[in-house]
Parts: sequence; structure tokens; C-alpha cells
Amino acid sequence: MRIPPTLPHEHYVLTIRCRDAVGIVAGVASALAAAGAFIIESSHFGDPDTSLFFMRTEFRPTEARFRSVEDFATALKPVAQRFDMQLELHPAQAPMKVMLAVSRHGHCLNHLLNRWHSGELPVDVVGVVSNHEDMRRMVDWYGIPYHHLPMGKDKGAQEAAFLKVVEESGTELVVLARYMQVLSDRMCEALQGRCINIHHSFLPSFKGARPYHQAHARGVKLVGATAHYVTKDLDEGPIIEQDSVRVGHGMDANALARVGKDVENVVLARAVHWHAERRVLLNGLRTVVFRQGGA
Amino acid sequence: MRIPPTLPHEHYVLTIRCRDAVGIVAGVASALAAAGAFIIESSHFGDPDTSLFFMRTEFRPTEARFRSVEDFATALKPVAQRFDMQLELHPAQAPMKVMLAVSRHGHCLNHLLNRWHSGELPVDVVGVVSNHEDMRRMVDWYGIPYHHLPMGKDKGAQEAAFLKVVEESGTELVVLARYMQVLSDRMCEALQGRCINIHHSFLPSFKGARPYHQAHARGVKLVGATAHYVTKDLDEGPIIEQDSVRVGHGMDANALARVGKDVENVVLARAVHWHAERRVLLNGLRTVVFRQGGA
Amino acid sequence: MRIPPTLPHEHYVLTIRCRDAVGIVAGVASALAAAGAFIIESSHFGDPDTSLFFMRTEFRPTEARFRSVEDFATALKPVAQRFDMQLELHPAQAPMKVMLAVSRHGHCLNHLLNRWHSGELPVDVVGVVSNHEDMRRMVDWYGIPYHHLPMGKDKGAQEAAFLKVVEESGTELVVLARYMQVLSDRMCEALQGRCINIHHSFLPSFKGARPYHQAHARGVKLVGATAHYVTKDLDEGPIIEQDSVRVGHGMDANALARVGKDVENVVLARAVHWHAERRVLLNGLRTVVFRQGGA
Amino acid sequence: MRIPPTLPHEHYVLTIRCRDAVGIVAGVASALAAAGAFIIESSHFGDPDTSLFFMRTEFRPTEARFRSVEDFATALKPVAQRFDMQLELHPAQAPMKVMLAVSRHGHCLNHLLNRWHSGELPVDVVGVVSNHEDMRRMVDWYGIPYHHLPMGKDKGAQEAAFLKVVEESGTELVVLARYMQVLSDRMCEALQGRCINIHHSFLPSFKGARPYHQAHARGVKLVGATAHYVTKDLDEGPIIEQDSVRVGHGMDANALARVGKDVENVVLARAVHWHAERRVLLNGLRTVVFRQGGA
Repeated sequence: MRIPPTLPHEHYVLTIRCRDAVGIVAGVASALAAAGAFIIESSHFGDPDTSLFFMRTEFRPTEARFRSVEDFATALKPVAQRFDMQLELHPAQAPMKVMLAVSRHGHCLNHLLNRWHSGELPVDVVGVVSNHEDMRRMVDWYGIPYHHLPMGKDKGAQEAAFLKVVEESGTELVVLARYMQVLSDRMCEALQGRCINIHHSFLPSFKGARPYHQAHARGVKLVGATAHYVTKDLDEGPIIEQDSVRVGHGMDANALARVGKDVENVVLARAVHWHAERRVLLNGLRTVVFRQGGA
Repeated sequence: MRIPPTLPHEHYVLTIRCRDAVGIVAGVASALAAAGAFIIESSHFGDPDTSLFFMRTEFRPTEARFRSVEDFATALKPVAQRFDMQLELHPAQAPMKVMLAVSRHGHCLNHLLNRWHSGELPVDVVGVVSNHEDMRRMVDWYGIPYHHLPMGKDKGAQEAAFLKVVEESGTELVVLARYMQVLSDRMCEALQGRCINIHHSFLPSFKGARPYHQAHARGVKLVGATAHYVTKDLDEGPIIEQDSVRVGHGMDANALARVGKDVENVVLARAVHWHAERRVLLNGLRTVVFRQGGA
Repeated sequence: MRIPPTLPHEHYVLTIRCRDAVGIVAGVASALAAAGAFIIESSHFGDPDTSLFFMRTEFRPTEARFRSVEDFATALKPVAQRFDMQLELHPAQAPMKVMLAVSRHGHCLNHLLNRWHSGELPVDVVGVVSNHEDMRRMVDWYGIPYHHLPMGKDKGAQEAAFLKVVEESGTELVVLARYMQVLSDRMCEALQGRCINIHHSFLPSFKGARPYHQAHARGVKLVGATAHYVTKDLDEGPIIEQDSVRVGHGMDANALARVGKDVENVVLARAVHWHAERRVLLNGLRTVVFRQGGA
Repeated sequence: MRIPPTLPHEHYVLTIRCRDAVGIVAGVASALAAAGAFIIESSHFGDPDTSLFFMRTEFRPTEARFRSVEDFATALKPVAQRFDMQLELHPAQAPMKVMLAVSRHGHCLNHLLNRWHSGELPVDVVGVVSNHEDMRRMVDWYGIPYHHLPMGKDKGAQEAAFLKVVEESGTELVVLARYMQVLSDRMCEALQGRCINIHHSFLPSFKGARPYHQAHARGVKLVGATAHYVTKDLDEGPIIEQDSVRVGHGMDANALARVGKDVENVVLARAVHWHAERRVLLNGLRTVVFRQGGA
């Protein structure tokens, strides 16, 4: 049997979250097959702790009758209703709109922008917000708007301006790329599930300020970084990705910070990449991350 | 909707290999759902290079009518025929019968036996083959047969004796845990797809003899280990797992060998574990490895 | 210039700890050179935070006049007094006497004993202490004493018995290889600087009981292990070594424990190895670890 | 004893290479102590295979009489002559002049420039050479010269122009940051010991062209990168640093290339950093790398 031809890059990504039960995969796969969808990649996971079911399927159309999000949404409606699913369906070729936020440390910003500029980060960077002017020149080079929103006495006003920029730009994801401000509870709520932060430690170790100094004082032999969704509980949000690097007694806090930056760059870029490809699903205080096969 | 109760550990593992096409997942999932199978874990992968489709599904019964391998095999027969599948179905609670082979370096053997003895390696070790007597005392302690098959002038006779032990014990997987003999082409064929070797380098670097000495001479900064299926092409078989560890200029070949042993232990045990859980599928000269979610 | 011949393995290890100053290395190296010592490996470190200086030098004699610890100690006495050094000098060929302690999880014990038995861990295992009987058979196989010291109502009595075993055997290092008892303050003091514990988390994350369950609940993407000196502050002692391994959403606490054991084995064995080679020096709440060149 | 005060950053780096012998460390340390040098960090290594001795010492002056390279060079002259040393002495605050070379993949260039611009890479980037125009805009942003030297029919002329740029700029180190041209033997000789290349595989695996495609075809489970000195033997030069990252069956050669770039960035930046701090010494076909204590 030959695989039918298709338009290049005409992919769709389906994500599902519901109570676990017999027949979910059968129901979804049958609805997709009936609509001529050719499955490229698919993963599911049933959490025995919470009895929740998670699924991500990437497919492409093979029949002329089914060619749009609406077509497939209609085809999936019965099974979605039967299992009371939270179901999302997106064309893969429409990159997610992302707003970056930064303060004075520009390494993560530079890494994300370079990756995006070379076509490797599947997002659409719609702008950069900063409470400082330091990174304006770099952002100008990339030809995207720089929103300088200094943190004055009125934190509420600054955050309102930040949210306005988010709304007006159609931002789907906010990335705190070393944005050194604690968001208010209200801001956290407004961005729930669509705001990723990079914390420069291997959480839950060294929450709060100056984690590399804490790590140096404790004498750890590895330092790490953690990308997580932002929640009201500081540095307690669901973890998306972590990694670590070996350090030694001869390195002071500055040296830890220097080697740690490499880990921050990579960990944050992975988290943004996976979120943008809709590979990350929230599971209470944890995440389900459907990475590319076997990686 | 509540998840129906089941007998503890009454799991089945289904693996499938066939040409890729629209409707495979739907067909399999529908057949399973109709038979009341509750899916615990499932992964699939379509290789765009070869147009082959691979699937592994772990499920448990929820209906009295479907309780045995035969019941589910019957339920899956139509879809298997429709897509011309290589389909395997095994009860997960029946551990795979494994024969270990070793020469004089006992670290991998010790690691595998300890893991098995503590109930963490889901296999049934049916014996150990060796061309030396060195490891007999260790194997005796574990209460399993030790087959001393010295390598005399007649390699064919030794291999015939080895294969006889494999057959008579019902061995499903042979693990070369630092067995320092090159298998003949005939032996490789006889054990095709069911013989795993650990090579003490990061293949394809340093094939052949004394890889740690080769690594030292080349001055590499990491050494590694590779678990792979044995084929007629020495050290060229499909790779199941690899890992590496940092080394430095102050370490001679013996020191590399010492730290490398930790990697060999872990890499081989992972490969055996995954093979025993039927997570590894052959894809030409490569493998598809469906690891536990997100790991 | 040819390197003068020497007796095989006739090495000495010198460690020094003192206030940092100009001329220490010159003083020590000159005293050693005058005594005909050929330096094999040497490292030093001055901590700018504490103004302490640390040094480890491995050397071998080349002159007939200097052939014993006493000879070299005499040669080093003036420089030691001048800089008020804590100086230790040991023949490298005299392996450190080590007592292992274990409760019911035998993986670290098995790993250490196997490494020692194959001649790769440069220690002399003088016995095993346990509050349970589970590991007796394994220890018997290795032909070393098993001291069963059950934890009754009188913790003080049990610890006194433990210390008696330590003293009578001439133990230089106690290794808690998954010994699941919190040592009393008195016991910690008695073993200060010569008792290493393995904690099954990436400290300071997940101190205390059931760290893998804590890690699962937090949803971390890496789990780790930490080898540290035991102090009165539980899980707060100076860290010798740490490492980590990737985990995923599909793994429950038991699965984390299973993959974590590989890290525990390796991390504890490294720490014991380095301590036994006198590569680890205490620096307040931290350690200086002079690893083999470049590793 | 108090550590005498000094000017900030007035450090010197001393490197030594000679035949191994008794008394070298004593001789050097005594000469330095007599000149009032306070040792900040020091490492040495005697290679038993080659009987060569390597040393790197970082120190700062504490006496008014010794304040320049010349002062210390004079102080070290007798010991240097006695042991026939290759001895180099440099002020640490004079950053090494570096020329970067790139073709069309800009990730390593971007990473190095960002690191340098943020003051974390202790070098002085004097320009960028490229056989293409693609990276000019990025380099312009950083305000450094961009030398476009297209590869026409006359390779010799292009290389002569390259060497002229190197000479006229006072370049001490050339970094091939994904410069996709094989240097001629003559060029290799001219840059011997001062030209670092990044190869996008874990050498000696996958030498030559398109290593990610080779890695995909072989089905490896890790990909890596290697920073090495350039020699006439392609991809055979002395290795400075390597690292690797996990990949899986679901990733094609492009996906390997994408994740591999993170490793390339980090490995090359480390190699350049260590070379610039004169931590890397050539030892035949291998290197001695004196990394910061314990890292």
C-alpha cells in the first residue's frame, strides 16, 4: 500500500485531555481515519495517579473533502463529546505568537532570537518587553518591536501595560527569558498556562534570588536550570524541562553563573520549542511532555 | 466514567510492524476497544525513510470474554491481515527467558544478576554460558546453571554446544555480557534479533579489540559504551542504547576501562530491560526504542 | 634526563591544609625535591573566600636515603611548621580500611563489593554492619564479617556496638550504603570526616525520607544522588559527588527509584574511591576534590 | 599570615613543557616564591607514556621589585635553562587576539560573539573571515571587520589573503566556527597549534562530510561535537573538548543537526575559553587540559 501524496507541511496537531477510559484511542483514531488523516506521530499517556488521559497526534490530510481545521473538528466532535474531552486542533504551519521578556542578562534572549532567525524555533516572535533599555539595540537588529516598560512605583500600571502589549499583539505565549521581576498574582492568573520562565537552578533546589550564590555556598557539584510555567507560587510552577552541568571547588559564584548560562539557554529553548509544537500538557502541578520519538 | 477493575499485573504487550498507511491505529485501537482492552501505554512511529510503521501497546482486559492471548489474537486477526502486519502478543507477566554469556570480566554479569535478583529486571535468567571458569562461584551463589564451554580448536563444536544450551533452556534472548569471542556467521544467524552485545566504546568509534586503548591513543574526552544486536558484521549491528562519561588527560587506558565499566553496566541493563519489555523493534540497520513515557 | 627507577607502586600521598601564603608550594616542592621525591601528580587550590590552601601530591622515592613515611615526614617537618600545616602522609599501597553499613536495599553494597573484589576500589573492606539480616548471604560470599546490629529500643546501645566494631577493626572510613538510620549527634561526632552517606536525591532538593516520592510529586525531569560526609545536620553535610539521570512523566516513584539506583551506585563508588585516595579535603561546609587529571 | 594586597587583575599565566624529572616543581615554585609571586591556581601533569611534563600556574605579584613579564621571566630563566623548558609567560589581563571564520551556519559565530560581547569570553575578537556574505550583517552589529574572502578557482590565493588578514591583525588564534572549507597542508602548517575547529560529530566517529547524515544512517542514540586543533590530517587533530546529547529514532538528520548545534556551541566556546586562558597544552596527538579546579 502506498502512502497517498499530500501538500508539503500541511500538518495538523491534535491535543486531548480527558478522564481515562476504554475506547478513547479507538474513537479518536477511527474518526481521524474516516476523515483520511495520515498519522505522522502520536503519543498518549494515562496517569494512574489522576486517572487523566493525555494525547498528542500529528497528522496530514489525504482526502480532498477534509482540508481544514473546521473539517477535522467536525469529524472529531462526536468522540470529543462522548469522552468530554478538552480538545485542541491547530495547523502546524501556523507558528505560535511569542512575546519575550528580559531584564539585563541577554544570553537567553540572544539564543532564542538566533534560533528563531535561523528558522529553527517554530514560533513567531512578535516583540520583546523589558523593564530596561539594555537589550534594545539587539532587538532592533532583528527588526521586532521593543517595548520598554520600566518598573516604577506602580507595579500594577507596568503589568497592565505589559498585558496590553500581549493582547494587542495576539501573543499566545510569554517567555520570561531572564526577566527579573516577580509577577503579581493577577498577572500570573492572566497568563496561566501560557507563560514560561527560566529559573537558574535545578528546582526545587535554590528557589528565589541569587541561586548561583546559594549553590556556591552549599558546595554542590552540579548546577542546573529549570524551565517551568509561571504560577502564583514563586518557582513552584509545573516543570517543563531541566538539565545540569558539572562544576567544581575552583569555581566561584560568577564562574557557576557563566557555565550555567549554557544550560539556561538550552533548557529554555527546548521548553519553548516543545510548547510551540504543543508537546507539553498540564497535569496538575506536573507536565506531560511528548518529545519527538525516542529523544 | 470509572476505569473498570482488573486483575493485578494482567497486562498484555502488543507489537506491530507493517507498511505504513492510513487507518492502522484506528484499526488496531478499534479492535482492542471492541475487546474491552484498556490501554495503559502506547507508542507508534512511522519511518518516512522506509515507509514502515511500528507500534507497541500495553493494555489490560476489562471484560470477562477477553482474558487470554488467544482471545485478543482472534480479535486482532482481521486488522492484522488487512495491513499484512508482523504482530506479536505476549502476556507481560511472563518474563522473557534470558541466557547470559561472559568471559573473564564479571562486572556486567554481576550488575545484571543483582538487578534480576532484586526483582528489577523483568527477565527469567535461565543460565550462564562461559568459555572460562572464573565466574562459576558468582553464578552458583545465584542458584542458576553455569555452562562451561571452553573454546578449544573446534569453534564450531563450542558454538553448537552453546546453541544446544540455548535451545534446551527455551532461551528467548542471549546477552553477551563481556563475552570476548567473535560469533561465527552461522551463530549470528541462529540468534538473529535475539542476541544483544555490549561493546565498550561509543560505536562506530573504536570497533574491534581494545577500544579503551584506542580511545586513550586518540585522546578523546569522553568514553562510551554501546548495546547492540549481534549481526555478522562485527560491531555493526543495530544500536539499542549508548551512553558516555567524561575522561581526562590524567587517565591511562586502565583508568578509562575502570570508569567505562559503569557505563557498560548501565547501558547493557537498559537494553536488556527494554528488549524484555518488547520496547525495541528492528528497523533495518537501526532500532525503534519505545521508552517509558518521557524518559 | 632519564627518570630514575623505583620500586613498583611505592607511592606516597601527601595532603596539606593551611592558611594561604606566598611560598607554600615552593617550600613543599623544595623539601620533596631535596628528598629525591619524583612527583607523579599534584594539585593545589587556594580558596579566596576562606584564605585556606589545600594541596595533594602523589610522589615516589628515587633515592635510597628516603624510603619510608618517617623519612619524608622528617624532610617536610620544617616547612610544615613554618606554615602551620595540617599535613598527612600515607603510603599509597596501604589501602584504607572501610566498614560498609546497609539496611535492606543491597544495590550499593553489591556494587561496592564487586568493585572491591575485582581490585578496582583501592580499599580494604573489613566488614559490613546492618540492622537487618537480609544481606548476610551476599556478604558471606565475599568472606567478610557481617555484624548484625538490630535497632531495638535502645538506639544508644546499638550505636555503641557499631562504634565498637569500627574501633576493633581499625576502620578508617564508614560508608553508609543505604543504611536507613539517622545517626545520633554523638555518633556523627565520633565519625566526623570519616563517614560517607549516599542520599538518593540531588541535594539540597528532597532532603529527608522518600526522596523519589517527593521527586515524583514535584514532577522533576531529572533525578539525582548525592554522596556527602555525615554531620549532625541531616542531609546537610559537605557534598563530595553528585550526578543525575533523565526521567519522564510516564515514570512513577518506583520507576524513579529503579533508574536512580544506577546513579546512587556510581556516585557513592566515586566518593569512596576519591576519599580512599585522599583526594577529598574538607573546606568548611564544602569539599575540595582533586580528581585525576582532567576527568 | 595575611595575604599581601595586589593590584586587581594583575595576574600572570605561566605554562611549561619539558622532559619530566625530579625537582621541576621545586625549581619553578622556588623561583616564583623568591620573586614574591602568590600562586592563585596551579596544575601539573607528567605523562608516563611520553615522559613529558606539563605545568600551568596562575600567579600575582606581591612585591614592588617584580611587576612585569620581564621581571618574572628573568627570575625563571635559570630553572628554565636547567630543565630545557618550553616556557611561556603572559599577563592574564591581555586578552588573546582571535579571528573567527565562518561559512553559512551562524550559530557558533553568534554564540561566541554574544559571549565575548557580554564580557564572558576572555578574548579580543579582531575580525571575522568568511567565504560568503551571509554573516556580514551580524558581524557589523558587533562593530568588527568582516573579511569576505570568496573561494574562487584559486584556493591558494584565498588562503594567502586569509593568512594576510591573520598576520596584519596580530591574530593569535583562528577559530573555525563552522567554516566549511578544508585547509591546505600549507595553511595547516602556518596555523599549527593556533587554529581550532569544531567538527559536528563525536570524533573519531563520522569524520568528513555530513556527519549528522552519517549518524542518522547508523542509528546512533547520542550525537556529539568535537573541538580540536587543525592539522593536515582532516578531523584527526588533537582533541580539546567533546560533548554529546541524546537523540532518538523519531529524529531525522535535520533534527539531529538542530539539537547538535547546542552541543557545537558549548563545546567550541569551552575550547576557545580554555585555549585563551592557556589551559590547553599539546601532547603529541593529544592535549593536556588544565580546567578550573574540579570542574
